[in-house]
Amino acid sequence: MRQVAAIMAGGRGERFWPLSRQSRPKQFLRLTGDKTMLQETVARLTPLLDLSDIYVVTGTQYAERVAEQLPELPPENIILEPEGRDTAPCIALTAAYLAHRFPDEDVVLAVLPADHLITKPELFRQTLAGAFALAAAEPVLVTIGMSPSRPETGYGYIKCGEKVPWSGRHFVYRVQRFTEKPDRATAEAFLKEGGYLWNSGMFVWRLSVLRAAFAEHLPEVAAALPALTDLCGGPVEELAKVFRSLPRISIDYGVMEKARNVYVIPGDFGWDDVGTWSALGRLLKADANENVTILSSPTAQQPILFGSKRCIVAGNGRLVAALGVEDLIIVDTDDALLICRRGQEQHLKSVLEQLRREHRTAYL
Amino acid sequence: MRQVAAIMAGGRGERFWPLSRQSRPKQFLRLTGDKTMLQETVARLTPLLDLSDIYVVTGTQYAERVAEQLPELPPENIILEPEGRDTAPCIALTAAYLAHRFPDEDVVLAVLPADHLITKPELFRQTLAGAFALAAAEPVLVTIGMSPSRPETGYGYIKCGEKVPWSGRHFVYRVQRFTEKPDRATAEAFLKEGGYLWNSGMFVWRLSVLRAAFAEHLPEVAAALPALTDLCGGPVEELAKVFRSLPRISIDYGVMEKARNVYVIPGDFGWDDVGTWSALGRLLKADANENVTILSSPTAQQPILFGSKRCIVAGNGRLVAALGVEDLIIVDTDDALLICRRGQEQHLKSVLEQLRREHRTAYL
Repeated sequence: MRQVAAIMAGGRGERFWPLSRQSRPKQFLRLTGDKTMLQETVARLTPLLDLSDIYVVTGTQYAERVAEQLPELPPENIILEPEGRDTAPCIALTAAYLAHRFPDEDVVLAVLPADHLITKPELFRQTLAGAFALAAAEPVLVTIGMSPSRPETGYGYIKCGEKVPWSGRHFVYRVQRFTEKPDRATAEAFLKEGGYLWNSGMFVWRLSVLRAAFAEHLPEVAAALPALTDLCGGPVEELAKVFRSLPRISIDYGVMEKARNVYVIPGDFGWDDVGTWSALGRLLKADANENVTILSSPTAQQPILFGSKRCIVAGNGRLVAALGVEDLIIVDTDDALLICRRGQEQHLKSVLEQLRREHRTAYL
Repeated sequence: MRQVAAIMAGGRGERFWPLSRQSRPKQFLRLTGDKTMLQETVARLTPLLDLSDIYVVTGTQYAERVAEQLPELPPENIILEPEGRDTAPCIALTAAYLAHRFPDEDVVLAVLPADHLITKPELFRQTLAGAFALAAAEPVLVTIGMSPSRPETGYGYIKCGEKVPWSGRHFVYRVQRFTEKPDRATAEAFLKEGGYLWNSGMFVWRLSVLRAAFAEHLPEVAAALPALTDLCGGPVEELAKVFRSLPRISIDYGVMEKARNVYVIPGDFGWDDVGTWSALGRLLKADANENVTILSSPTAQQPILFGSKRCIVAGNGRLVAALGVEDLIIVDTDDALLICRRGQEQHLKSVLEQLRREHRTAYL
């Protein structure tokens, strides 16, 4: 059975402003190494999948950037969303595209985020291979859940139900319940109780099983699938018209939380969704004073730090001197500069709101 | 008797790095208003003195910048130091220049810093006028002392001695003792004891009285004065040769601390030497959260501040967002960026040392 991965690369990534912009969201940034998040995501898949079986789903405005960052990806493997409408329509479009391309096959599809960090790619591939095998064998929706290491309030949680008898290398559980980002006390209770996993946003299923799930839980989407399938490869505007008619809803809320045939495979491969500058700071290699530096190019100047601790400095070629300061996020870009206390990134939302209100679109 | 003012504008002003550079020291910066510190200094004198009686003493490398900032100043009123050798040689050169220009007059000379803030210029002029009158009438070295408002350790102190009978509008005291920058405990003791004034670095004297003081306390300088006077207006290299032979010493240490005919006139005209970014922050108008903004031009963008307090932001046209931070100095320039905790400016010295050591002269 054909196995393919679709990388969801349509996110806006406002949380890494001012490095991330509408025109350059997080998945296209070099945050954790020499490769961009998207390039890393593809590179960790290629030992398992042929490039021709890797798809990237993104917005039309990012088509060129994807092609630029992944020059060896077949151009027909870039699936363009006419607009951002959350993950359920995005996954429906992907399913339609694959059905159009492989009309006589029941493809096994892994849906993967484009902008997460995985520090143990070999373990990731082992887990993903297990998920492919499970989804191929059983008519179930497979998710990959992460063993939680702290009472994180930024992630969704999966409550494991009964253990499923399964001959593969991995443990498999029925999913008992999804919980959206909990508050601190709830997250702590989950960890204390045990049996909870973080929702990584990675899903594996056969197209036929996905279609059945849409039919049961999102009938509007299921009804649009044949039209979407027919229109793939046809006039863009007609496809866009159908796509825009789909409900704006996430796959978690629209399908996963309601479906009863959801299985979870626990994974432990150094995963982090790198949702904020502070999270990134925790993940990168720090100096003796716990300062972390991210440079726009390997030849860019190192910052000068005297008496500074636990700072994250994202440099852009100019000299940055940080003196006697602690717990700061310092991000230098051509036209905008951010200085933010670690853990105070919630203010970024207000900045972007103000910029939108004042129509300073160049900064968005 | 002719009254002239010489503005000492040769300082390097490293303490305002990265806004100040070797090529653009503090006196040439717009720190406290629309005018540069030098322009402010001249502007506050012109109601009292004709421009033709105002001189600017500076290094040869700054000649053009002075002319640019003071287009109406007669070019012959720019006195060029061949090199920086502290204030005693600088004042000797000024005296020689004036003696060359006015060979038959005993000019009354006020020596004034180019880069201090004075918020009450009318009171300043009244005090300076009194000092001119006193210096014209008596064979004494007149200093202007500031009523101290806090136990500042960054200033020199003057201990007032007996009150001098004087018919002018101002109180006048004999100076009993100069004290270089004291430690905190000493400064506090001075304030408690009373009778101390801050040394503002403003001096007024007749050329004949200054010459006599040099003869008594710095005979090498006194001996060079006739040659310097002859060489003013002659070949630059010969003047430079004599100038370079002078001892590298301040007028305070070389003359004022030793002379017995030193008088002080107390002044109270909102003076500050604006020695650091933190000092500047104290002096400028702040917003409701005590943040202070210095923009490179009136049309430059205002910084975006959410949850930030007591910050000093010197902008340079780019957007600066400071979020959830307190007590920071943020200075944005074309090629370098400073983020420094207020009161931690001592680290600037280390930055400049490192840049010098690494021959990164563009940043100096």
